Amino acid sequence: MTDARSAVLPHLREILGPRGMLTDPADTAAYAEDWRRLYQGRTAAVLRPATTAELASAVKLCAEAGVPLVPQGGNTSMVGGATPSDDGRELVVSLARLNRIRDLDRIDMTMTAEAGITLQAAQEAAAEADCLLPLSIPSEGTAQIGGILSTNAGGNNTVRYGNAREMVLGLEVVLPDGQVWNGLRRLRKDNTGYALRHLFIGAEGTLGIITAAVLKLVPRPRETEVALAAVASPEAALDLFGRLQSHDAAVVNAFEYMSGAGVGFVLKHIEGAILPLAAPADHYALIELATTRENAGLRSGLETVLEQALATGAITDAVIAESEAQRRALWRLREEHSEAQKREGASIKNDVSVPVSKVPELIRRATAACAALVPGVRPVPFGHIGDGNIHYDVIRPEGGSDAEHSARRDQGSRLVHDLVASLGGSISAEHGLGSMKTEEARRYKSPVEVAALEAIRRALDPKRIMNPRVLF
Amino acid sequence: MTDARSAVLPHLREILGPRGMLTDPADTAAYAEDWRRLYQGRTAAVLRPATTAELASAVKLCAEAGVPLVPQGGNTSMVGGATPSDDGRELVVSLARLNRIRDLDRIDMTMTAEAGITLQAAQEAAAEADCLLPLSIPSEGTAQIGGILSTNAGGNNTVRYGNAREMVLGLEVVLPDGQVWNGLRRLRKDNTGYALRHLFIGAEGTLGIITAAVLKLVPRPRETEVALAAVASPEAALDLFGRLQSHDAAVVNAFEYMSGAGVGFVLKHIEGAILPLAAPADHYALIELATTRENAGLRSGLETVLEQALATGAITDAVIAESEAQRRALWRLREEHSEAQKREGASIKNDVSVPVSKVPELIRRATAACAALVPGVRPVPFGHIGDGNIHYDVIRPEGGSDAEHSARRDQGSRLVHDLVASLGGSISAEHGLGSMKTEEARRYKSPVEVAALEAIRRALDPKRIMNPRVLF
Repeated sequence: MTDARSAVLPHLREILGPRGMLTDPADTAAYAEDWRRLYQGRTAAVLRPATTAELASAVKLCAEAGVPLVPQGGNTSMVGGATPSDDGRELVVSLARLNRIRDLDRIDMTMTAEAGITLQAAQEAAAEADCLLPLSIPSEGTAQIGGILSTNAGGNNTVRYGNAREMVLGLEVVLPDGQVWNGLRRLRKDNTGYALRHLFIGAEGTLGIITAAVLKLVPRPRETEVALAAVASPEAALDLFGRLQSHDAAVVNAFEYMSGAGVGFVLKHIEGAILPLAAPADHYALIELATTRENAGLRSGLETVLEQALATGAITDAVIAESEAQRRALWRLREEHSEAQKREGASIKNDVSVPVSKVPELIRRATAACAALVPGVRPVPFGHIGDGNIHYDVIRPEGGSDAEHSARRDQGSRLVHDLVASLGGSISAEHGLGSMKTEEARRYKSPVEVAALEAIRRALDPKRIMNPRVLF
Repeated sequence: MTDARSAVLPHLREILGPRGMLTDPADTAAYAEDWRRLYQGRTAAVLRPATTAELASAVKLCAEAGVPLVPQGGNTSMVGGATPSDDGRELVVSLARLNRIRDLDRIDMTMTAEAGITLQAAQEAAAEADCLLPLSIPSEGTAQIGGILSTNAGGNNTVRYGNAREMVLGLEVVLPDGQVWNGLRRLRKDNTGYALRHLFIGAEGTLGIITAAVLKLVPRPRETEVALAAVASPEAALDLFGRLQSHDAAVVNAFEYMSGAGVGFVLKHIEGAILPLAAPADHYALIELATTRENAGLRSGLETVLEQALATGAITDAVIAESEAQRRALWRLREEHSEAQKREGASIKNDVSVPVSKVPELIRRATAACAALVPGVRPVPFGHIGDGNIHYDVIRPEGGSDAEHSARRDQGSRLVHDLVASLGGSISAEHGLGSMKTEEARRYKSPVEVAALEAIRRALDPKRIMNPRVLF
């Protein structure tokens, strides 16, 4: 342990109290490894402040001593964004004890939530007030608001409500020097200088530590319809999406693409999964509509659009769920994609986005390129086609070697990333860069942009105390 | 003229060509004064680049020579945000010739527009493609996209679609050193570093000059309903707003508040203005709903909500427009507020916001405080109550002196601003700070926030070349 850290630890314990700091390796181990077990780090201590003031004092001390910090929420990063380095230099800051709802206002339609509350707990608090916090991601039971905002999480409902960023009116942040920025505004309009909150959102903890946020709520929908359509092609999926948008863009909660292969794996491996269509197809669209209005004709509208799409040949078959159980069953075909793929062997995962109109080209060209690289690999593109965000997973050839496939991870991702970049896309649509993709991202950013990002970081964190190995 | 400028002008003319630079005072005068005639400046030259590359070369030259620049769009700033200083030190950069639509894509639902196109021209291009650019402000025939984004303009439809910020997917910006940042992404999701675009939006030209933007479009609504309600109080207006939101938040295009005084002035001074209610009231709400869906029951839903609000006493009377002409007539009561007020004498104007729930308190307390300061003054609060954004104008006492009233501008605004700040509000909701409010804003920002804003500016514009007298 360096002198700086040894000197600082007793003071940190004084500030944080006995419950506020873990140093026993048995206690810190879970914080030093990511949940996918791709990154194993070490840390001398996990700081667990109970208040913003405690955290501010701790950060001030660490900044003065030059001890780097890695903020950690629910530790559900897909890209090693919250794992300390393996040299043990970095301390982990867990926000888990900062987990209160400070305020919920039905007139303002806002919730002020601390960073360490899980998304699910925040959703439940909103629902109790007959409101909706319109953000939903698979890890919501564990992922915390602070981490969700620091990575600008996306999810299934982005097509309607936008990314996590769009739900934020205000933030409270402990800055890299330990000062507290109280930007917990509850304002829908405020044009008095640069939008600081948008800088911290998506900064992956490199500019400061988010401790609380004012989140926008919306009225809770009262009617929901979910449909599954067999579509003729990815282009046809976009045609159907366009029809739904033109019909009533304001009710389209989700519009997801799935390939025949991906749905096939779910049907093969997931107990109870069924395809309620006459026959399997090569491409599917999963649709969710919702409205706060009762008797809004949601279903008849959906039927009309589906009939029109059937008539043009864009879709070949479709089913609308008749009950909550059926709605869940349709969503399961999508949500079990990752679990089902695991059973088929090693997979190279890519979270990419392109302009919506380019998704069909992305899928076609990536599939051809992957097949050329390794004959027999099984691409499983799926996800948020309405946002242009495709999870382009590639499973090893049937009967092939997991190790051999995994060894091609960088090569395979490079191929997909190069293609994505040529289509004007992004190599990280919703997961962020973390330790995993930061260097890779440098390849696709212009030097002008990297220089600007670096200048901003230097301005706010001149000692590079905050999550130093992540971002530029 | 300083040596730096004299030396630079011939080179600028070389770069920009004969049409690209104005130096004759007869030509530059209109650029050196704001449209409200509150700020008169001087400038040695107005640069009018025709391409981003021309502008980049010009900025590089000016940066090297230390010549400050004031970017100017349609010159419709309400706060002197685009007027050069009166010492003639600053050159004006007009974006007017950079006015093409570079691209419009019906599948991506995006438009790539250059900075100098007027909002109205951009709206029309969207409409031709059966799309809507969901941003509307009174000056849209003159205001340009670049200025609108640099000030993060608001308007009547913010309650549904958000501020200008929310419509931007990508930007192209000439940075203060003359480099071009090409961030013209057309992506709905991209988490690969700090959200640079959000820094330039609302920066009032202090971090660089926006030259083009990728804007989100939405499908064009097919049905619209407009209603006017006499409401019992500002609280009752919020009650009605809550009912509309709960009924169907997705269709509420606008929800505006007007006082009895404000509507009274419109009826008194504006030819043809009529109040289609049984009797005048003390408070009004103006409602606009719209949907892309045909036969969506928009009107019956509105009737239901209004009937419920009548039954509870929240509203005392209401009318729904029966034709496009009637819809326009109802909107006129709101839109002619400024014109009608002019006829009543000098007015002190405040563009402020508070949390939505605090609007009634703001109106009540500001009205009492103004009356205490100057007996007989006539406050006219109106505007976007659904966003918590109130234009709190105060007209001089009947028969009073314009000069005397105007002399109290700073004192009057200070009173309103202090109150707004105590309610957690903003002293500039949608107009920005400009030359007018920058110093005033310092009073209400924490030193921590000002330091962060200044650090960011120094990082991106170390020579403070860009709009140097505006923002911190």
